[in-house]
Amino acid sequence: MKIEGKNPIRELINSGKSIDKVFVQDKIADIEIREWVREAKSRHAKIEWVDKKVLDKLSETGHHQGIIAEVTNFEYADFDNVISQQKDLLLIVLDGLEDPHNLGSVIRVAECAGADAVIIPARHSVLVNETVIRVSAGASAHVPVCKVGNLNSAIEQMKEHGVWVYGADMDGESMYKANLKGSIAIVIGAEGKGLSRLTRELCDQIVSIPMSGKVNSLNASVSAGILVYEALRQRGTE
Amino acid sequence: MKIEGKNPIRELINSGKSIDKVFVQDKIADIEIREWVREAKSRHAKIEWVDKKVLDKLSETGHHQGIIAEVTNFEYADFDNVISQQKDLLLIVLDGLEDPHNLGSVIRVAECAGADAVIIPARHSVLVNETVIRVSAGASAHVPVCKVGNLNSAIEQMKEHGVWVYGADMDGESMYKANLKGSIAIVIGAEGKGLSRLTRELCDQIVSIPMSGKVNSLNASVSAGILVYEALRQRGTE
Repeated sequence: MKIEGKNPIRELINSGKSIDKVFVQDKIADIEIREWVREAKSRHAKIEWVDKKVLDKLSETGHHQGIIAEVTNFEYADFDNVISQQKDLLLIVLDGLEDPHNLGSVIRVAECAGADAVIIPARHSVLVNETVIRVSAGASAHVPVCKVGNLNSAIEQMKEHGVWVYGADMDGESMYKANLKGSIAIVIGAEGKGLSRLTRELCDQIVSIPMSGKVNSLNASVSAGILVYEALRQRGTE
Repeated sequence: MKIEGKNPIRELINSGKSIDKVFVQDKIADIEIREWVREAKSRHAKIEWVDKKVLDKLSETGHHQGIIAEVTNFEYADFDNVISQQKDLLLIVLDGLEDPHNLGSVIRVAECAGADAVIIPARHSVLVNETVIRVSAGASAHVPVCKVGNLNSAIEQMKEHGVWVYGADMDGESMYKANLKGSIAIVIGAEGKGLSRLTRELCDQIVSIPMSGKVNSLNASVSAGILVYEALRQRGTE
């Protein structure tokens, strides 16, 4: 898998993860990039100095900024470990998002808000790919992302571990009135579809973002941001 | 300008705006689309029944779903009218966004939250185009969007009208502690760049979303959503 561009590479280097190979632009002047190349070499990465045209061709995002790294596939976090932690958990569960921009943006929300993990299903959902990593602006290197075989089983497991599971939907209790303290998960539905029926039924409670317009739907990552930050406010961790 | 696909067309029809021309797929079965065509005809739009291939070719977004309307260019709202309203204003000001997805998503936030307007500069900023309208999921037909010649002059005008102007940036007062009641504007910086220096200096106060991670940056539309909803909470209009 390729990681491209300065922000994602900076985060990759800072995360301490292993790097397979680095393609870097010949004679690049950027001091930061030259420093990362030295660092990657010290971690046994192969370094290849190439012409900008080669990078343009290798680039999958069109935003390489002179450096592309190859790393092993994204490392998902272990779901059981995440939910077994002895603390008040704040989890974001995504019920089948399709757009990598939304997943990347939710991971960014999770990182900024200090959420404990983002949980996605292994099927019928976008997974962590190059676009997700780029959009997450490096956050994907810091936030545990769990990929679970069955989202509904995962929700049941969370409930067994004492996590209160909120589904985000239109006709629930206002988020300002719901109690978002303690161990909670917030389940966000897919773009345009919302929560699937069974998942919705499994939730302990439905929570809503108050809407005053005519359109009444927010982008999935915006919804996640608003709900998670309302939880943070209530938890007094700001 | 073309409006494509069911959600945007539904909002266009509901908004009551004039429609120049409608291209619709031959023998389309969708009852809702057939109803919109009748409605558009009653508003003196020209109707053309065409083959799906023609729509594919006309489509600029690739998501026409069997119907494309041509309308006059997006109608921006009058800035002076917006800021002269005798009420507590809630305005979202965008300091040079580049990504149409972000602008569309902010317009959606504004509509859902009942904000009074979104204000964008005429230069060095994405304007309301087909992608913005599609991403806004119809919200652009309901929320006043003002395009101003000079953003800094606009900020000064707002201040003269008693609007308290908050700039969103990292090192300001926590949004939970800032007073977001009364007439306010929230200025959101461009992707990756943040607020421009002069704009930042013109703001009455800097307000921050508390961050607890290492990456510490949120997508522009997510930031707008979080800040505007914190304002709503404080204003007690939920």
